Amino acid sequence: MTGTEIKEMDLKYNLHSWAKQGGLNPMVITKAEGIYLWDSDGKRYMDMSSELVNANVGHGNKEIVEAIKEQADTYCFLSPAFALEPRSKLAKMVIDRMPDTMGKVFFTNGGADANENAIKMARLYTGRYKVMSRYRSYHGSTFGAGNITGEPRRYALEPGIPGFVKFFDPYVYREAVTFASEEEATNFYITKLREQVVYENPGTIAAIVMETITGSNGIIIPPKGYLEGVRNICDEFGIMMICDEVMAGWCRTGKMFAFENFNVKPDIVSFAKGITCGYVQLGGVAVSKKIAAFFDDHVLSCGLTYSGHPLACAAGVACLNYYDTAHILDNVKAVGKVLGEIEEEMKTKHACVGDVRYIGLWSAIELVKDKETKEPLVPYGQDPEGIMPAIIKNLIGKGFYTYSHENTIMVAPPLIITEEQLREAMAIMDDVLTEVDCMI
Amino acid sequence: MTGTEIKEMDLKYNLHSWAKQGGLNPMVITKAEGIYLWDSDGKRYMDMSSELVNANVGHGNKEIVEAIKEQADTYCFLSPAFALEPRSKLAKMVIDRMPDTMGKVFFTNGGADANENAIKMARLYTGRYKVMSRYRSYHGSTFGAGNITGEPRRYALEPGIPGFVKFFDPYVYREAVTFASEEEATNFYITKLREQVVYENPGTIAAIVMETITGSNGIIIPPKGYLEGVRNICDEFGIMMICDEVMAGWCRTGKMFAFENFNVKPDIVSFAKGITCGYVQLGGVAVSKKIAAFFDDHVLSCGLTYSGHPLACAAGVACLNYYDTAHILDNVKAVGKVLGEIEEEMKTKHACVGDVRYIGLWSAIELVKDKETKEPLVPYGQDPEGIMPAIIKNLIGKGFYTYSHENTIMVAPPLIITEEQLREAMAIMDDVLTEVDCMI
Repeated sequence: MTGTEIKEMDLKYNLHSWAKQGGLNPMVITKAEGIYLWDSDGKRYMDMSSELVNANVGHGNKEIVEAIKEQADTYCFLSPAFALEPRSKLAKMVIDRMPDTMGKVFFTNGGADANENAIKMARLYTGRYKVMSRYRSYHGSTFGAGNITGEPRRYALEPGIPGFVKFFDPYVYREAVTFASEEEATNFYITKLREQVVYENPGTIAAIVMETITGSNGIIIPPKGYLEGVRNICDEFGIMMICDEVMAGWCRTGKMFAFENFNVKPDIVSFAKGITCGYVQLGGVAVSKKIAAFFDDHVLSCGLTYSGHPLACAAGVACLNYYDTAHILDNVKAVGKVLGEIEEEMKTKHACVGDVRYIGLWSAIELVKDKETKEPLVPYGQDPEGIMPAIIKNLIGKGFYTYSHENTIMVAPPLIITEEQLREAMAIMDDVLTEVDCMI
Repeated sequence: MTGTEIKEMDLKYNLHSWAKQGGLNPMVITKAEGIYLWDSDGKRYMDMSSELVNANVGHGNKEIVEAIKEQADTYCFLSPAFALEPRSKLAKMVIDRMPDTMGKVFFTNGGADANENAIKMARLYTGRYKVMSRYRSYHGSTFGAGNITGEPRRYALEPGIPGFVKFFDPYVYREAVTFASEEEATNFYITKLREQVVYENPGTIAAIVMETITGSNGIIIPPKGYLEGVRNICDEFGIMMICDEVMAGWCRTGKMFAFENFNVKPDIVSFAKGITCGYVQLGGVAVSKKIAAFFDDHVLSCGLTYSGHPLACAAGVACLNYYDTAHILDNVKAVGKVLGEIEEEMKTKHACVGDVRYIGLWSAIELVKDKETKEPLVPYGQDPEGIMPAIIKNLIGKGFYTYSHENTIMVAPPLIITEEQLREAMAIMDDVLTEVDCMI
């Protein structure tokens, strides 16, 4: 098919996510290799968002492709009721990479149903029904995952589920007070959270669920001691601490899981994306040994046809092996350091850059009209002139593929990116930010 | 790995669906081909449930496997934002197989998220929040799909979502009254449903969602005119009619979609399973042209990372082509007729068979203690002695793999089964039912 045919057929028959369908003009992508995408006109782009922050090993990874082909020749799908080699292997590999407090895995198709099952398990284990989560969060768009989501993508799911309660992320850059130190910020957020937990009636709260590092909503990295503070509140009141590692996990931050950066051990971990890098869809929930033991003699009221899909598990085994053999964590640390340095330079240089937040190869550039007042480049939830889409279009036109959320630009390249490739990409970003400087 | 190693590792690290983990002893399956499964001891089983009623073309289908391998060599995953050849192709193929009133497709990973998005779209389109569904139904186990589910697998998701209202299926065999005719039954169920719709305030009801034929809960086939009656109620009050074709669709009943048996056109169709037969996970929602047009200038507040996964779409294209080239519908009609005849004979012959319900190659055998009183072999929701599991174990031991729900046994072989294979399998069933006759 030609690019024109693919696009016409797409627009005629396919519904696209989070958009009015009328004005869409999707890129037609026909080839992908390493950190690069090619459109149907042969134009090349650097995939600087790793698709939706899932293509950690980039595109066309030979090891994963071979594993898929080999498994497809054996069997593609068999029921979750059976014991199957790829599922057994991957379950062990997941638990082996977690803290030694973790026990078992329940596999799903992606991040949304991972979070659905994580909160279900917390409720079953505790016998409590309330679930606390944060406003600046995205956990998926099914009713459960969407109701723990705090941002506008949850609105279509309201009236919400009884007992789903929100609190605010530690968004220090935009807090209504100025903190004297990181410690003071942590003390503020943890004190407020504990206060809210007490007022919500702790004996009814099954779980506090949070992206370990807030992802789509702007890479909000918790201040030092924050997650330990949450852990203490959970321990004090018997609440399950659920870390959503869907975006943050699997080497993205320079650790296998983001919570390793903060010296905490969650009770439940949801994951997806980087476990297979999307080659085949896979997500899952890992639970502590305590919770796993609970389900020895209590029914696990969870299930889906494709739990632990063998083809996906085979891709996962190859993917986790690749992280090790290709020393991906070393690359993330080395190239991630360069990314941070470049972004700090950008913050100094560009009037439009209010804040940069980065960890490993995951970062956000937050755009402002005024560095002093921190007035956002576009107001929250409003961008009638399409300023942010225009900036993204400019980046993509110059070969830097990514996406934005509110007034932040996501920079999250595949974890195989070299320093040279990163510098080439960030030079494009630098040009575009210079243009934005002139607009404000 | 040996069978013992696979099983030990599975039980140590993997959580199984809908079960206490303590007592599990899963079969280790190592090979699958056509309608057959083999365990790690080399014992062969006929897959008489098509796994979870999804393996419509059986196992090891060469065309689908080749399509997966070819797509894996091109690219495995690219973002839903792009226009991609396999997704464009499959979206057209789905709509081409639907009534001419249908317009566009939104792809998901499976049946649960298909139903999640179906009810979301109905609510967005109508601006109403209530959703009506049936008690004897299973639509998935995420919060939205689980809250439209009527049977006990929803309990873990309660307190439920406001505005989710249940009514009863047309379960004629066990209704509290005896109907003089099919027409009288239809009139009863439709009158009661309309009455409930009126009392629920029709202007608040977004959708009536139902499995076209109730699946897991016992293959409850609607009486003549029932679905037309539901269609009329929906038309009268501007309610969206959602047919869940996750199990019923894709040739299972001898038609491409089950609703074709009943002369109705739904507004929204959810599907999964048979679109890829599970080779790669895929589900989706098809909406009418009217609804599709609405989303031209209204935001479709739906999305998931893996919407329209290219590898899954490539498998789907090959699968739908295979249904055509292998004349699967013809086989379902021919062999399905034999299945119905065999089950009618069983109902006459066996004291334990209260009812048989069948359409195409999809059927349930309902077991009773007494044919006259219709007393179920095990009471609803209770089977402390494990009578049904023992019957299933007996069947499996003799090479007939399937599963049960309450007091019914599912018989739903791959749609490629020959008459000879079916007769061989049903001879096993006949033996086992003879043993059950002696128990009651």
